[in-house]
Amino acid sequence: VSITRPLGFRAAATTAGLKPSGKPDLALIVCDDPEAGSPAPARGRKHLIEARRSAAAVFTNSAVVGAPVQIGRQWRDAAVHGGAALRAILVNSGRANAATGQPGIEDARACMRCVGKHLGCDPGQVLPSSTGVIGQRLPVEQITAAVPALVAALARGEDADAAAARAIMTTDLVPKMAHREIELLHHQVHIGAIAKGSGMIAPRLDSAGAPAHATLLAFITTNVAIEPPALQRALEQACRESFERISVDAHPSCSDTVVAIASGANPMRPIHEDMPEFHGFRAALTGVCQSLADQVIRDGEGATRTFRVIVRGARTGDEAQRIARAVVDSPLVKCAIHGNDPNWGRIVTAAGNAAAPFDPETASLTIGGVEVYRAGVPTGVDPSDRALRAAMGAERVEVVLTVGAGQASGWMIGCDLSAEYVRINAEYTT
Amino acid sequence: VSITRPLGFRAAATTAGLKPSGKPDLALIVCDDPEAGSPAPARGRKHLIEARRSAAAVFTNSAVVGAPVQIGRQWRDAAVHGGAALRAILVNSGRANAATGQPGIEDARACMRCVGKHLGCDPGQVLPSSTGVIGQRLPVEQITAAVPALVAALARGEDADAAAARAIMTTDLVPKMAHREIELLHHQVHIGAIAKGSGMIAPRLDSAGAPAHATLLAFITTNVAIEPPALQRALEQACRESFERISVDAHPSCSDTVVAIASGANPMRPIHEDMPEFHGFRAALTGVCQSLADQVIRDGEGATRTFRVIVRGARTGDEAQRIARAVVDSPLVKCAIHGNDPNWGRIVTAAGNAAAPFDPETASLTIGGVEVYRAGVPTGVDPSDRALRAAMGAERVEVVLTVGAGQASGWMIGCDLSAEYVRINAEYTT
Repeated sequence: VSITRPLGFRAAATTAGLKPSGKPDLALIVCDDPEAGSPAPARGRKHLIEARRSAAAVFTNSAVVGAPVQIGRQWRDAAVHGGAALRAILVNSGRANAATGQPGIEDARACMRCVGKHLGCDPGQVLPSSTGVIGQRLPVEQITAAVPALVAALARGEDADAAAARAIMTTDLVPKMAHREIELLHHQVHIGAIAKGSGMIAPRLDSAGAPAHATLLAFITTNVAIEPPALQRALEQACRESFERISVDAHPSCSDTVVAIASGANPMRPIHEDMPEFHGFRAALTGVCQSLADQVIRDGEGATRTFRVIVRGARTGDEAQRIARAVVDSPLVKCAIHGNDPNWGRIVTAAGNAAAPFDPETASLTIGGVEVYRAGVPTGVDPSDRALRAAMGAERVEVVLTVGAGQASGWMIGCDLSAEYVRINAEYTT
Repeated sequence: VSITRPLGFRAAATTAGLKPSGKPDLALIVCDDPEAGSPAPARGRKHLIEARRSAAAVFTNSAVVGAPVQIGRQWRDAAVHGGAALRAILVNSGRANAATGQPGIEDARACMRCVGKHLGCDPGQVLPSSTGVIGQRLPVEQITAAVPALVAALARGEDADAAAARAIMTTDLVPKMAHREIELLHHQVHIGAIAKGSGMIAPRLDSAGAPAHATLLAFITTNVAIEPPALQRALEQACRESFERISVDAHPSCSDTVVAIASGANPMRPIHEDMPEFHGFRAALTGVCQSLADQVIRDGEGATRTFRVIVRGARTGDEAQRIARAVVDSPLVKCAIHGNDPNWGRIVTAAGNAAAPFDPETASLTIGGVEVYRAGVPTGVDPSDRALRAAMGAERVEVVLTVGAGQASGWMIGCDLSAEYVRINAEYTT
């Protein structure tokens, strides 16, 4: 179970015919009355619940963004200032509705209106989200024709969660789901999530205030009651420690979107940033996002193995992060990982290209705990050394690079580059 | 003919045993007396010639550089301030002598001393240059043992040029040579050059003043008489318009080196920057460097085709260049080029990630003259359109991207990403 485990949520998925493969391509996640399952919820209670709902989102910070991201940013900026929380998320795969200009915006709005009508809510409370081929219009009629049955099929439970997770996949081989449960203020808080992402993955996400990139889509649900600014802040911090730490191909997408909706169905006092419970919630949310990010990098296009690069001794966290990113994004390093090849010179030189200080005097490099480079010179470990070969052959290769005498550190997780990656991406639209 | 066509130069190559393949791995280029071929040049004339010699160099601006680059930078910075010009360049392939610390410096100096002794010159006038595996010591004894025969074999002509060009190859499939001839001040000026480079190619080179990356090695010879600062400036400008415009894998090397030696053997007045002839010389030198850069990108590891990205309408040349680089370095774009796939959304999104302004309102994209995107929306050209397919199938795909209403432009040349690239780089040292 994932997104419908927290009370207040229902989900459904269907096939609207957007993918040549004919696989499911349309999902709907709805934050309803917590008693949505019951035949006739009392009117007063419904209003109370709506007031307790909150939502937050982060999007790609690319200069070129899809229509759903443009609409989402507008909603988010209003929501942070007390605007209405989201009621539903309509997600399609197959078409990204990006590089489609104003007609793309109109297409998305037509879908929002259709969902709003069938759910009986303001279209502005429906967030559209799209992933797939860029530069092609959405087949609005196919989508709107599918909406009535989609709404009718809304349900809770494993089947609904799994169907939604599958419908948002593009080149993903496996669906991605996560769930955490914690106790806050003597109440059981559930956080559920689904995500998709395999290629065009190098998320750098913006924030509600100033902009920051990722086609990663992740949708998070929780029954917690939380103030909107606190939810937004918790989500941004969770993304920094998860999705922004992975890169499949160094190519952020125009559609990256992470959305969290809190139903407020839990009869607890709403959490705000100054409460100690905020940190507990944020940690659990980070755990959910890290689980999803890990599932995404493992399912990176063509990936057979992953590797984590930890950078220590940098002057600032930003410099450490920049160095770690330069290493995980080097095609030469990625190929060495693919070939179980302890060609560590590629790691050191990739770090040297990150436009951050690198002091050989205090530098060192270990692979799976085996030190291969120290104080600017090789330690003399033979490439055929048994421990080094074992370290290079691990499912996740662990690289620790110290670059100087500073105190700051950072990390990124990447995946290997395989011939399969080339096959997938040389044949994507043709 | 290339490096020994200009009067004053001789070259030779041999096999010192640095490569597992047993292929040639050591080359020597010497700027001698122009009558070096003759048995007994007059002493006075030799001194005159030495005074007329000048040399210039640019190196990688990475924070991690090989021992030869450290030594070369010291020489260059002294040379710009009136230090001695180079007499010889000793180039080995097989080992990069990088990430080897102080012992690597000592190894390089031992090789310089050996060459100096056999040529009868100051070791400081010998520039070492190395390419190959990083993090392994140079086999100094093998190299110095090979030097006497190398010096004895120094000669002019096609065979010497071709042998030198082959000895410096690593994963290169073909040797790279260029030659231009121009008339300056009523004298015939020759510029010859050899280069190597196939992987770890994304040159960003420094300058004599302030730093700017590339394992590209290029060695240029000319019989022109030119003031050292003018030669340095001409070389820097030529590199900006050539080597810095190509990227095989977005991974600059710790060893990138471009060196030019002018013998001054031509009995002309030395050229300085304020003379109109400077521009003629610079243009010819740029032509030589562009020819070499073109040979390098065509021989990029695993490359089957190349593509040029021209960016227009940027605010500054630097922003245009940054956008062009983001496009040629995207593995998704490279795979689309490999697959003849007009998946232009990847080009637009790669540009959007370059942290430079991109205004869809004034943006457009053409591939081989076929406009696929204009004013932020697709033009509706079908992916199966005959002209578009032909444009995507060209040996060099030509992409023109307009990103806004600015006046600045830039360009980069990249190559496709193939399964062969992965094979080469997953198996390089093992």
